Amino acid sequence: MISRYKLRTDLAVENKEKFEKDNVEIPGVIIRKRTDEERELTTTWVKIENERAARIMEKPIGVYITMEAPSLAVSDEDYHREIASALAGHLKKLLPSDVDSILVIGLGNSSITPDALGPAVVDHIAVNRHLILEYGTDTNARGHHPMISALAPGVMAQTGMETLEILQGIVAKSKPDAIIAIDALAARDTRRLGCTIQLTDTGINPGAGIGNYRQSLSRETLGIPVIGIGVPTVVDAGTIVYNAISGLLDTLEESETDDFLSELISPSLRSMFVTPKDIDQTVKRLSYTISEGINLAFVPPCQNCT
Amino acid sequence: MISRYKLRTDLAVENKEKFEKDNVEIPGVIIRKRTDEERELTTTWVKIENERAARIMEKPIGVYITMEAPSLAVSDEDYHREIASALAGHLKKLLPSDVDSILVIGLGNSSITPDALGPAVVDHIAVNRHLILEYGTDTNARGHHPMISALAPGVMAQTGMETLEILQGIVAKSKPDAIIAIDALAARDTRRLGCTIQLTDTGINPGAGIGNYRQSLSRETLGIPVIGIGVPTVVDAGTIVYNAISGLLDTLEESETDDFLSELISPSLRSMFVTPKDIDQTVKRLSYTISEGINLAFVPPCQNCT
Amino acid sequence: MISRYKLRTDLAVENKEKFEKDNVEIPGVIIRKRTDEERELTTTWVKIENERAARIMEKPIGVYITMEAPSLAVSDEDYHREIASALAGHLKKLLPSDVDSILVIGLGNSSITPDALGPAVVDHIAVNRHLILEYGTDTNARGHHPMISALAPGVMAQTGMETLEILQGIVAKSKPDAIIAIDALAARDTRRLGCTIQLTDTGINPGAGIGNYRQSLSRETLGIPVIGIGVPTVVDAGTIVYNAISGLLDTLEESETDDFLSELISPSLRSMFVTPKDIDQTVKRLSYTISEGINLAFVPPCQNCT
Amino acid sequence: MISRYKLRTDLAVENKEKFEKDNVEIPGVIIRKRTDEERELTTTWVKIENERAARIMEKPIGVYITMEAPSLAVSDEDYHREIASALAGHLKKLLPSDVDSILVIGLGNSSITPDALGPAVVDHIAVNRHLILEYGTDTNARGHHPMISALAPGVMAQTGMETLEILQGIVAKSKPDAIIAIDALAARDTRRLGCTIQLTDTGINPGAGIGNYRQSLSRETLGIPVIGIGVPTVVDAGTIVYNAISGLLDTLEESETDDFLSELISPSLRSMFVTPKDIDQTVKRLSYTISEGINLAFVPPCQNCT
Repeated sequence: MISRYKLRTDLAVENKEKFEKDNVEIPGVIIRKRTDEERELTTTWVKIENERAARIMEKPIGVYITMEAPSLAVSDEDYHREIASALAGHLKKLLPSDVDSILVIGLGNSSITPDALGPAVVDHIAVNRHLILEYGTDTNARGHHPMISALAPGVMAQTGMETLEILQGIVAKSKPDAIIAIDALAARDTRRLGCTIQLTDTGINPGAGIGNYRQSLSRETLGIPVIGIGVPTVVDAGTIVYNAISGLLDTLEESETDDFLSELISPSLRSMFVTPKDIDQTVKRLSYTISEGINLAFVPPCQNCT
Repeated sequence: MISRYKLRTDLAVENKEKFEKDNVEIPGVIIRKRTDEERELTTTWVKIENERAARIMEKPIGVYITMEAPSLAVSDEDYHREIASALAGHLKKLLPSDVDSILVIGLGNSSITPDALGPAVVDHIAVNRHLILEYGTDTNARGHHPMISALAPGVMAQTGMETLEILQGIVAKSKPDAIIAIDALAARDTRRLGCTIQLTDTGINPGAGIGNYRQSLSRETLGIPVIGIGVPTVVDAGTIVYNAISGLLDTLEESETDDFLSELISPSLRSMFVTPKDIDQTVKRLSYTISEGINLAFVPPCQNCT
Repeated sequence: MISRYKLRTDLAVENKEKFEKDNVEIPGVIIRKRTDEERELTTTWVKIENERAARIMEKPIGVYITMEAPSLAVSDEDYHREIASALAGHLKKLLPSDVDSILVIGLGNSSITPDALGPAVVDHIAVNRHLILEYGTDTNARGHHPMISALAPGVMAQTGMETLEILQGIVAKSKPDAIIAIDALAARDTRRLGCTIQLTDTGINPGAGIGNYRQSLSRETLGIPVIGIGVPTVVDAGTIVYNAISGLLDTLEESETDDFLSELISPSLRSMFVTPKDIDQTVKRLSYTISEGINLAFVPPCQNCT
Repeated sequence: MISRYKLRTDLAVENKEKFEKDNVEIPGVIIRKRTDEERELTTTWVKIENERAARIMEKPIGVYITMEAPSLAVSDEDYHREIASALAGHLKKLLPSDVDSILVIGLGNSSITPDALGPAVVDHIAVNRHLILEYGTDTNARGHHPMISALAPGVMAQTGMETLEILQGIVAKSKPDAIIAIDALAARDTRRLGCTIQLTDTGINPGAGIGNYRQSLSRETLGIPVIGIGVPTVVDAGTIVYNAISGLLDTLEESETDDFLSELISPSLRSMFVTPKDIDQTVKRLSYTISEGINLAFVPPCQNCT
């Protein structure tokens, strides 16, 4: 059932689920799922291979890796370190092994808690580009490690500029080989909030988590590989209503559904989001897990040691 | 219509509206309304006179002043100063004129944006109790002004202590004559978010905005007058669903309604809240307006001047 | 007396004072001073006209306006608004009257209190570029107002990138007509901390306040006018020692002085700064004053009003 | 040499050093020192046994444990975890093994970077008192663990109240068995900043790090054991000058010294402090190390796990 009322989700696994319900297989969409029982970690690998599949899935061609683990909601540091290590593994595979310079971008508004994930990750990134440019790097001792730079550019309501404009300018001057962009996402299902991490080689849409749709940050717009890392932290307020009444809807005809929905879901809900009451803890925990994952993947183990 | 699904609101005007719809007059509830057309400011004064009225209104006996002004959502500094001045007027009337010492309490969790109003107000309060205790005060030159102290104690998830416990202890030691407590509130109607200020002489419930119900902060529990100042910044996630389908409900019998609602409104929604996407701006603006109101009412105009 | 131990100051008025002490007049340096007794505000206008004067003054050719007012250390809101208004007047004169687009840059590290001035100013700037680009501007009603954008790019230790690199990229893409850059500065004299504002059309050196010398942000490096606004918030730790013993030094020969100083002033002091214990209040107050000055100069009075 | 110009230090090891220089042994002061070469960690254990020794050492009777490790300045997470574990060991020995309830207090002003250590530690403490009071604790599975509560009360300039007043009130109501209070300290030697941790069973003086002397927080004033944990983050500005010229002073008579010093060290320096340019990194790292130490010592390993 596809309705005029768009249920927004930034998660490829949720788009996929819509079709699973109806037992539809989509040509050009490859799905693999693996469950690590010990860690209660389900990893879903979705590949969208062609334009037709992309249109149906409403997501660009590319790879989407989703790590789902209820225990991410728990503040067990050792567990988060294991997930960080798994995340590091995925990151290394998504990027060419010879990248010399990575720019980490923390998207979102640091003064709105559920949108602060990206800036919080950037806060923990061990940048070293300026040190390597000035002092060089002891490659023998440490193996190959790219230079890391990082920025949290803020959102358009703070800067008056499109994030894409800002990044195109910085990429043109500082010439990284790849970008890793972290953003808070919107999910359809409240149970996914705070315990799901999505990685994708298709980049990311700034403001997808809370703000409006903006131009995508991707290889197409920035000229270099852009890995998106996202965690769902909000659900659209309209979606909450939709979810509540979806049982009712199954009994209606499709055309009736649309009219019914546009009546029920007030336009004012479009400027609102739903988020858990402990979202501050979630953002704190997962910003640690993700920054740890990036540092593990790319930063020499003891950067400041002599 | 009263249902088992409790629609939470911290606003006395919203409780009142439930009865207005049904054209019911409640004995023991006095209501006065005044509209300042120039400022688009509607001030509603609700007095709950006896226990029976309190039970019906689901609010303690006392006075509730609600200032509603759509323009509070606009960042016009001069306008906010006018509202601050009106707020100062109400505050002075709600407190005895001879209070010598006021403790301002900013309730809420400063790391969750819509719950950060109280701590943000405290940030802007011009405390002077320590200066007056040490250097005295030049009362001739300035007229009578109480000593001001302030604290943002954090929420129970941060401290492991009830806010009431903390305040009872501090009141016993520092002996203020009155408390002004600021908190973020929950409303039923999304249109009230960020453009309504409620003052009441009945005190406040910590965590009413986002967290669970806790013991009240009031003259009963603290032994001194407690003025509550609140701004609605969230709506319960379940209320959003309720509002959306309330049209449908009018056609059902009351008993059917309850079953219908408990089916539709998922328990997981109880741990979630709904808030506008620009809530950071709202909290910034209104924390200024409220602290300005308190400073105008009680702090000598140029505290640090020679 | 010029010694090998460089006493750093970012204030042109302090460089000037070195020569005044010795009653030296410098050809190519024009100085005007005006005192507003009522506001206790001294405004010094220094113009460096040629390369020779620039070498002697150790500052680039250009105009330096210094506003000194002890009362800036006092939190009287009305007073700060008057200073903001004077600042707005200077800003308008320093920029061409027909600029259509201004980028406000908050330099410095928001997590080090005395270096957080620039980011704090940016927090209060009313950006509108994105709104004007999307909805246009009602020029008739409001007169000519430039579009405002703003960014706090962070410091190199946070980003791994030179601030100049970041800004060159952003200027190339977003094409502002002028930049206003705000930074915390270092002074020689502790009495100037927090009560001096310097404006200059020569731009600014990121990190001049606390970090190391970096490439300048100026018309030369960025291709558009760059107005620097700075407030001294720190004194170099070595300078404190120098100031303390400068009396002693007067009795020594110059060559002895140098040896004496390099012995006394430990190299470890170079990685330290001195700042007042109430620097948080200073940064809060002056970030308000400066952002108010910029908003007064360039933003229509009621941007969000209907 | 004791001069009228008081060189302030909050570190017992620095008081001790004054006497070591002169090869004086103080009766009633027991000192033990242990060096862990692998970790480059020097632990000094100072016990002041009687009033006479206390007067000479200018510190109360009690035990002072100082952990000095240059590598604390390095952001190696594994290393900091080892230090946290050593800290946990000291904490357990300093407190009675049967405490049922600990209140962790983060002293200092969170908006001044070098004073923000205490509030930053509190941010990371895993409080559980409210959970244990509500749900009880599964003591069999986990062994004995005390309830943990935590508060960052702010400084007097923010609250208008003495920290001691606030804590006496809270202790009277919430009845903890012991307090652990974390504060930023002042050292004499800049080389100790950020790489020294002092633990003591004599409690702590709020504001000792940056603000003025206030009443002590100790068993005498609070009625329960108070463990102080401190990290030096600042040096008094006057001390910097003193250190620089102390070589000179050795050649002077004591009475000359005093006059000389009071001339050189300007009173304005007393309202200033000296701190390293990367103090934000230090506070971030050590707040992690200390909170980790407290959590390791007292919180069950996986508090939220099922």
